[in-house]
Parts: sequence; structure tokens; C-alpha cells
Amino acid sequence: MDTAQVEIVEVGPRDGLQNETAVLSVAEKVELIDRAVAAGVRRIEAVSFVNPRRVPQMAGAEEVMASVRRDAGVSYIGLVLNRRGLDRALAAEVDEVNVAIPATDVFCRRNQGCTAEEMLAAYDDIAKAAHAAGMPVSATISTAFGCPFEGETPPQRVADIARRAADSGAVEIAIADTIGVGVPGQVADLVERVRAVAGGAGLRCHFHNTRNTGYANALTAHEHGVTVLDSSIGGFGGCPFAPAATGNIATEDLLYMLHRSGVRTGVDMRGIAAAGTWLGSRLDKEPPALLGRAGGFPAPE
Amino acid sequence: MDTAQVEIVEVGPRDGLQNETAVLSVAEKVELIDRAVAAGVRRIEAVSFVNPRRVPQMAGAEEVMASVRRDAGVSYIGLVLNRRGLDRALAAEVDEVNVAIPATDVFCRRNQGCTAEEMLAAYDDIAKAAHAAGMPVSATISTAFGCPFEGETPPQRVADIARRAADSGAVEIAIADTIGVGVPGQVADLVERVRAVAGGAGLRCHFHNTRNTGYANALTAHEHGVTVLDSSIGGFGGCPFAPAATGNIATEDLLYMLHRSGVRTGVDMRGIAAAGTWLGSRLDKEPPALLGRAGGFPAPE
Repeated sequence: MDTAQVEIVEVGPRDGLQNETAVLSVAEKVELIDRAVAAGVRRIEAVSFVNPRRVPQMAGAEEVMASVRRDAGVSYIGLVLNRRGLDRALAAEVDEVNVAIPATDVFCRRNQGCTAEEMLAAYDDIAKAAHAAGMPVSATISTAFGCPFEGETPPQRVADIARRAADSGAVEIAIADTIGVGVPGQVADLVERVRAVAGGAGLRCHFHNTRNTGYANALTAHEHGVTVLDSSIGGFGGCPFAPAATGNIATEDLLYMLHRSGVRTGVDMRGIAAAGTWLGSRLDKEPPALLGRAGGFPAPE
Repeated sequence: MDTAQVEIVEVGPRDGLQNETAVLSVAEKVELIDRAVAAGVRRIEAVSFVNPRRVPQMAGAEEVMASVRRDAGVSYIGLVLNRRGLDRALAAEVDEVNVAIPATDVFCRRNQGCTAEEMLAAYDDIAKAAHAAGMPVSATISTAFGCPFEGETPPQRVADIARRAADSGAVEIAIADTIGVGVPGQVADLVERVRAVAGGAGLRCHFHNTRNTGYANALTAHEHGVTVLDSSIGGFGGCPFAPAATGNIATEDLLYMLHRSGVRTGVDMRGIAAAGTWLGSRLDKEPPALLGRAGGFPAPE
């Protein structure tokens, strides 16, 4: 493991957009994805195969996948929550699927219409069919740091879900702070607990900056050996079914911190910052990302 | 040193206001200070004895000091940059003075009208007179992580200034990221370098969140044994003479991270968050702080 290198998973086209009032056109979503790839992103959560009646921002997944550039060496990820979603993902020829498994029941019911236990069973089912089709599956454990409805999430529950996801053949397990309540000590604890049960699965972390702890959490995850981090162009994001959930950590701001710390990502910060400014203009909102406003490290006059 | 305890130095009334277009009245400044103290703040940079023609936001320092509640056990700090400022601070009966010493020349000239070396000589002069009057003096080394005009700040220069400030009897030395460019690895390096030369002086850190690294920097400073941190109610702040310098780390968001991490501060997060929302209404600006919008950790339904 080269800890001086971090792989960015760009989640802006999915988590970044799903909570916005403005709904981007297919062409705009394609431009967002192509801009990320042009800036050097090599894994991108491009689409979500959820019911577009429930999440209208995610409509047009098939059209998006048919229109993006599909660069060789880039993995286009689709979020799926059931077998129907997996079938759509296979037909659309994504490179990976990601399944969200909430750690808390009330959030799971509101977000996914079933209990966490039922979602784990659904994950098993999705994973079996995906493996049969040769499609890699990762699992994202949402509300791992706290739940908008239940408060504290018992860390043992996160570890239990991680173990079962690993047993079902997840190639990667992500620990997600869906509502941005986590703090660095909690990150260190959960990363160690999940690593202990993850078997051969890789680890990924997913942070929101809702209470300004997201970048400190990302740093701590990296210090604890996590080399794959989710982030969102412009820092947009949120969850339609979690009140007050706000933006993911912004890719451009994460890149600033990592690059200035000597950590390589292969992603061009200025290209991402420009995409963040562009996305803000499309959504008619100032990006939560700060780099586009502040600029990078100042050059000498 | 109890690392499970952090002392917050509230700098909102000074660094938080000095770059705002709206100029608060004396009564509003007094309310801001009294609200911070009511929430449990025990050290507060209340006023600045700079020339009000150069920084109009800081006018009325004497009136502010004459009107605040002056709770026993609370240290009211005045910023001074020259002997004239010290004389005003002594007359206004502040409890401590803080002197800003930039680490880079171009910034020092624009901000303070002299070279960094000349400012160090001025510091010597201020410190001698302050000691004679029994007034504690701390030194804040500004642009320690980078300069808007010169780019990189050589860390050795920061250490040299710290050594000289310590030799001149600073009770405390602060390392300040005036323009919010620092990253955690740099924090660790500078804290160790400054500690090595600080003698008996205490260490304090001062971060801006201009590029979303401020909270990670604060965490790293604390991990490296720094138990005194500057922060600003609402996360307002900046510097009139540093282009694109934006807010200090917000006191309420710092408290969220620290308290959820088991670190005590003695300061009430909700009281500070309410003061941040109030200050935003006075300045007619949404606070950069996120806690006032997001709320604290969710209670179970």
C-alpha cells in the first residue's frame, strides 16, 4: 500500500446532484462526468439506478452512460439498491456497482423502504447476481457515524454489516458519514473495526462536511491507511431522505490538502476547481468548495 | 498538560470583524464579547489598538473595554502593533496584549508599514514597556504558513522569530496561518520547530479555513500538544491587507469537533452557535460556520 497515493472516487454526478432542487439535463451530467475524467479522475460514481420517481435528479442513467466518453482505464460506477437496479446497471454496461447499506433502520426505511437487515439480504442477492455476471460490487455502509433519526450508531453494527458484506464478496467496503456528524477519533475507530473484518475487501471512506469535520476525517482515514476517498466536485451533495444533510467533502479542496501534503492523486486540482465553478453556475448555487474562490497556494509576486 | 482540555481564545471581536464591510457599533461589539463570555469563553481578543483610520472596524476600542462586563477570571486581550497601541491598551486596562509579527516582509510592509525585522525590534520595545507595567505579552507570528505576496514562508524564519519573541519574554507564542494555506503536515512541523525554541512560553495556534484545511490543522496542532486555539464566532474573519484571506475557523464548529472527540473546553457550543447566528444578522451575511445551520449531533426521535 502506497500511502503517499490516494485514489479519488468522484461522487459528484450521483451524491453531489441527488439533493439539488435544480435537475441537470443528461447533457449537463455527461459534461460533468467528462470534465472529471479529463481532469484525471479514474473512478467515478456516474449514475444511480434508483427509481427516478423517488429521486428525479437521477433520471436518465442509461442515456448518461451511453453518452459519456468511456475512457479506457476509467471505472464508471452505478449505484444500485435492488435486482432491478442491477439489471439496469448491467444493461448500461457500467464498470462497477455500488450498493448502499444503511447501518440504522429508520434511515433505511425512509431511504430504501426496508429494514437494514432486509437491505443486507438484498445486498446478498445483488452480489450473487453481479458475480455471476462478472460485475464487481462494492458496499457503502451509510449512516455509519450517526443517524438523523436514531442518533448514535453502534460501531459494532457497522462492523457486523462490513463482515457480512465482505462474506458476500464485496471487493470494497466504504464507511460513510451520510449526515456529516463524525469526528476523527470515530473515523480511526471505525476504520480499524472494519479492517479487522473486511478480509480481502478494500477500504474506502465517504465524508460529508456538514459540520466542518469532513476534511479532518479524510485526513485521519488516510493516516489510518485508507487510500480510497469519495469526494464531490464543488462540494455539493446531500441526501433527499436525511434532513439537514449537506455537501460531500469537495474534490478540489481535498486535492489541495492532499497535494500540499505530498500525497499524489493523479487528478488536476485546477481542472476540478473549474468544473466546480461550472457546476455552481448550472445549479445556480455557490459551491461549498472554497478553492474555486480562494485559489490555490499563492505564487510569489 | 491535560490534552483532553483545550483553551479557546475567541478572536471574533478582533480578527472576525476587521475585514467586514459592515462596521459594528460599540454596543454591538460589547454584546458580541459579552455573549462569548456568557457562553464560557475565558480569553477573548476583544479589541485592537491600531490606527482606526487604517482599520475603521476597530475604532472605539476604549469605549468597548469600558463597557464590557469584565467578568472575573476572564482575560480581555488587546492587539497592539506599537508603543502608542500599548499605551492605549494600558490605559484601557486590558488583561493581556498580543503583538502580531509577520514572518514575511511584503505582508509586513503592507499590514504594518515596516519590515519583519523592524517589527521584531518594535516587539522588543513593546515587550519591555509592557513588562515594566506588569502587562503580559503574547506574540502571534502571522503569515507563518505562507504569504499572499511571497508564496512559501521558510519555516526556519518562523522558528527564528519565535526564539526572539521568547527571548523578549513572550508568555505565549502563536503560529498563525493568516491566509489559510497551511496543511496538517506543516502544522506538525512548525509546532515542533517553535516548541524547540519557545523556552517557557506557551504555544497557541491560529487557523483560517480559507481552503477547508483549518479544522484538520487545529486537530493536528492539538495532537501535537497545542492546547490553546484561536477561533472566531461564526467563522467570520480575514485581513484587510491580505487579498482573498477569509474566515477564521469557527468557534462553534471547532467546539463540535473537540467536544465530540472527548476534549473539554468549558465553552457552551449552543451559546456560541446562537451568537454566530446573531452576528451574521448584524453583518447581514451568512456565517461561514456550519453548526448554526446543521445543528449539533441529532437526538434520537
